[in-house]
Amino acid sequence: MAVIVQKFGGSSVADAARIRHCAGRIAEAKRRGDSVAVVVSARGDTTDDLIALAGELSEQPDKREMDQLLACGEQISISLMSMALKGMGLEAVSLTGAQCGIRTDGQHTRARIRSVDPTRLKSEFAAGRVPVVAGFQGVTDSGDVTTLGRGGSDTTAVALAAAVGADECEIYTDVDGVYTADPRVVPHARLLDTIRYDEMMEAASQGARVMHLRAVELGKKAGVPIRVLHSMRHGRGTLITDTGNGMETARAVSTAALKTDIGRVTLAGLPNRPGLQRLFFDRIAAAGISVDDIIQTEALGLGGKEGGEDFARSHADTPTSGHCNIVFTLDKADLADVKPLVEAALTELGHGRLHIDLGLAKVSAVGVGMQSQPGVAARMFKALADAGVRIANITTSEIKISCILDEADGKNALKVVHDAFELGSPVVTSAGAARAGSRR
Amino acid sequence: MAVIVQKFGGSSVADAARIRHCAGRIAEAKRRGDSVAVVVSARGDTTDDLIALAGELSEQPDKREMDQLLACGEQISISLMSMALKGMGLEAVSLTGAQCGIRTDGQHTRARIRSVDPTRLKSEFAAGRVPVVAGFQGVTDSGDVTTLGRGGSDTTAVALAAAVGADECEIYTDVDGVYTADPRVVPHARLLDTIRYDEMMEAASQGARVMHLRAVELGKKAGVPIRVLHSMRHGRGTLITDTGNGMETARAVSTAALKTDIGRVTLAGLPNRPGLQRLFFDRIAAAGISVDDIIQTEALGLGGKEGGEDFARSHADTPTSGHCNIVFTLDKADLADVKPLVEAALTELGHGRLHIDLGLAKVSAVGVGMQSQPGVAARMFKALADAGVRIANITTSEIKISCILDEADGKNALKVVHDAFELGSPVVTSAGAARAGSRR
Repeated sequence: MAVIVQKFGGSSVADAARIRHCAGRIAEAKRRGDSVAVVVSARGDTTDDLIALAGELSEQPDKREMDQLLACGEQISISLMSMALKGMGLEAVSLTGAQCGIRTDGQHTRARIRSVDPTRLKSEFAAGRVPVVAGFQGVTDSGDVTTLGRGGSDTTAVALAAAVGADECEIYTDVDGVYTADPRVVPHARLLDTIRYDEMMEAASQGARVMHLRAVELGKKAGVPIRVLHSMRHGRGTLITDTGNGMETARAVSTAALKTDIGRVTLAGLPNRPGLQRLFFDRIAAAGISVDDIIQTEALGLGGKEGGEDFARSHADTPTSGHCNIVFTLDKADLADVKPLVEAALTELGHGRLHIDLGLAKVSAVGVGMQSQPGVAARMFKALADAGVRIANITTSEIKISCILDEADGKNALKVVHDAFELGSPVVTSAGAARAGSRR
Repeated sequence: MAVIVQKFGGSSVADAARIRHCAGRIAEAKRRGDSVAVVVSARGDTTDDLIALAGELSEQPDKREMDQLLACGEQISISLMSMALKGMGLEAVSLTGAQCGIRTDGQHTRARIRSVDPTRLKSEFAAGRVPVVAGFQGVTDSGDVTTLGRGGSDTTAVALAAAVGADECEIYTDVDGVYTADPRVVPHARLLDTIRYDEMMEAASQGARVMHLRAVELGKKAGVPIRVLHSMRHGRGTLITDTGNGMETARAVSTAALKTDIGRVTLAGLPNRPGLQRLFFDRIAAAGISVDDIIQTEALGLGGKEGGEDFARSHADTPTSGHCNIVFTLDKADLADVKPLVEAALTELGHGRLHIDLGLAKVSAVGVGMQSQPGVAARMFKALADAGVRIANITTSEIKISCILDEADGKNALKVVHDAFELGSPVVTSAGAARAGSRR
C-alpha cells in the first residue's frame, strides 16, 4: 500500500497509443494496491506549436501571457490521460497546477515552487482516484498561472512526492535508467541500480541528460527516493537516493559524463581589483545566460604575486592587486550574445584581452567515493595522457573532476575515463580499487 | 468614460491577422477613454482538434475531462489576444474563467453561470488594463473547470457586463447586425437599429443565427444592452434592448426567420392518459436531444372529445381519456437517434403509430407588436396562400407565428412573409399597418 508519484514526459504522451501504454503502467501500480499520483508533460509538439503561435503575434511575448498559453500544453495532456485511465476502468481526475495547490513565486517562465498543498491529492487518494497533475506549472498567490522553466515537470513530480510523503517518485523516460556513461558513446556502459543524489546532480550538470539537476536537488532536500525508468520497457531502473548499497558507493567514481558544444571565453591581463568579476558576470546574468565553469588564475609575469621583479613593479603601481586571467565556459550557442557584453566590460575596464574558443568538450568523472579515496585525479589524467588526449582546462568539485578538451577527442576520452575506473564491471577488482597517494 | 464588454467569436480570432484586427477595435474603444473588458472564444479549429484528440482515446469521453480539455481552446485565445494588445502598447491581462471569478454549477459540458465576482475585473479597470477573459468556461465551487455549452461565449460576455454594470455588451460577429430576415435569402432585408430582447429571443430560437437565445435571455434578465456588430466592418450594428425607439416597436412584426433541416415525428392514435407525454420526452431528454416544437391534438374519430359516437364508445372503455396525436419537430440530424427511443416507448405503450418526415422548414414572423395588433396571423396565412405555399403545421407564441412547410418552399416563404409585413421599408405605410380583426 505504497504511495507513488509517476511522471511521464512529453514523448511518452505524444499520441493516443503511447498515452494508453502509460495508462497501463499506472494501472499496474493501482492493481498492486498503491496510491498513485501521475504527473504529465505537454504532448510532443504542443509546446512548439504554441510558441510558434505566440511568435506570430509578438517578437518578445509577454512572459505572463506566455505562461498562460504554454500551461495549456499540460492541461491537454492531463485531460487525455484521465480519459485513457477512465477508459481502462480506473477512476481518475485531472488537476492543473492551480487545482493541485502548487504555489510558486511570480517569476514567469522560470517560477520556483514555494509550496504544495496536499489536501486535494490526499482527498483523491482517499476516494480511490488517480489524480493526474499538470507538470511544469503552478499558480501565484494572486492566481496567475506560472511555468517552472527547464526541468519543470520532473520538479513538479518530486515536489508532489514530497508533499504527500510518497514512498517513491518514478520518472519515466526513454532510457532504462542511469548508466555509468552514455551507452550511445560507451556501448559497455553499465546500468546502475542506485546512485546518490549528489552524484546524479553532478552527472546531470556535467551532461547526463536523464534527469534535470533541479529535480534531483529538490529530491535530496526533501528526502524523496527517485526512480528513473523506461516508459516503454519493463525494468527496475535506477534509484536515486542517499541510502544506496555499499557496493556502489564504495567506488571512487560511479559515472563518467561527456558534455559537448562548449564555448570558452578567455579574458587575459585583467587588473585583479575588488569587483572585477561582477563587471563581467552581472552583465551575463542580466541577459539570462548560464555560465558553466569559471576558472580564475593569477597571471605570472604580469603583476602576479609570484611574479618576482614584475610583481614588485606592478605592486608599486597598484599595491592592492595584481593581474589575472579569467576563463569561463558556456553553451556554444550563447557565445554570440556574450561577446558584446564582455567587450563592453573590457572597454569600461580599460585593460585586458579577449579570446574565444569554440569546439570544446568536457569529460567528467563523478563519484561521492572520491572524497575519501585519493589518487582519482591522477588516474584520470594518466588514462587521458596514455590515450594521447590534450587537456585544456581542469576544474574539480568535492565529487567530480572535469577536463575540458577538444571536441574531437570527446567520445574517446569518455570511453577512456569510463574504462580507467572499470565502471562497466559490476564488481570492483583490485586493479580498479583506488590507489594510495594524493587525490589530485 | 463608459464601461464596455466586447466579445469576439472563434472566426474573429482564427489567425494572427484577425487577432490584430480585433485588437485594433479594442484599442479604438480604449482611446475613447472607455474601460473595456474583452471576451474571446476558442480559435477557429482548436475546439474541433481537441475533440478529435479526445475521440482517439475514448468513445464517450468523461465530461469533466472534456471540459478541462476544451477550456484550453479559450485559454490559448486569451493569451494570444493579450500579446496582440500589448504589442499595440495597451496594458492587457488574460484571465481564465476561474481567474475572472465566473462560478458555475457542476453540470459539465453545459454548466450554467451562478455568479461572477467582479473584483478582479474592477481592479484591472482601475489599473488601466484590458482584462481579456476566456468565454465559454467557468469553475465550480470546488475548483473544477466547466464549460457552458452552446452560446457559452456570448453568455459569458453578457454575464460580465452585468457583473460590472457595463453600459453595453458588444458582440462582434460576421454580420452587420440583426436584419429583418436573413439577407442571404431576402436581399432587400433591412438592418435593424434596435430590437427588443423578446423579439431577439424568438428570432434566435426560430433560426436567426446572429446571437444565442441564452445570452439574450440573460441580457434581458440583467438589463444589459447588447449590441451586435460586424468585427471586420465599421457600423452601428443592432442594439438589443427594451428601451428601443417607438418606430420599431410600433410594428406588429419586426423580423422574419427561416429554419431549415427540420425533421418531424408524428405519433398518431395514442391513448391520452396522464403520463403519456413523459413516456416519450423523458427518453429523448435523457439522450440529450433538443426538441423544437411540440404540437398535441386530440384525434377526431379515434376517441377525441368531439368524436361523437366513437368518443362515447372509447369513453366507456377508458373513462378518463381519449386518443390523441403528438407531433414534434427537431433537428433532422437527430432523427436517427430519436427513432429507436420513440419505438421503444410505443412498444411499452402498446398503442399508436409512428410517422417520420424529413425535408421540412419553418418560417416565423416575430414581433412584440403582435400582442396588441390583431390580424397578424391572418395576414401571414393569406400571403403564403397567395404564393401557393402549403402549410403543414402552425405553432404560435405571444410574439411569434411559425408555419412548418416543405423545405423546397422555405426561401420563397421567407421572402413572402418578410414582404407581407413590409419589413424592408424603414417606415410603416398605411398598407403595412396592422388591420382590424381577429389576430389569428
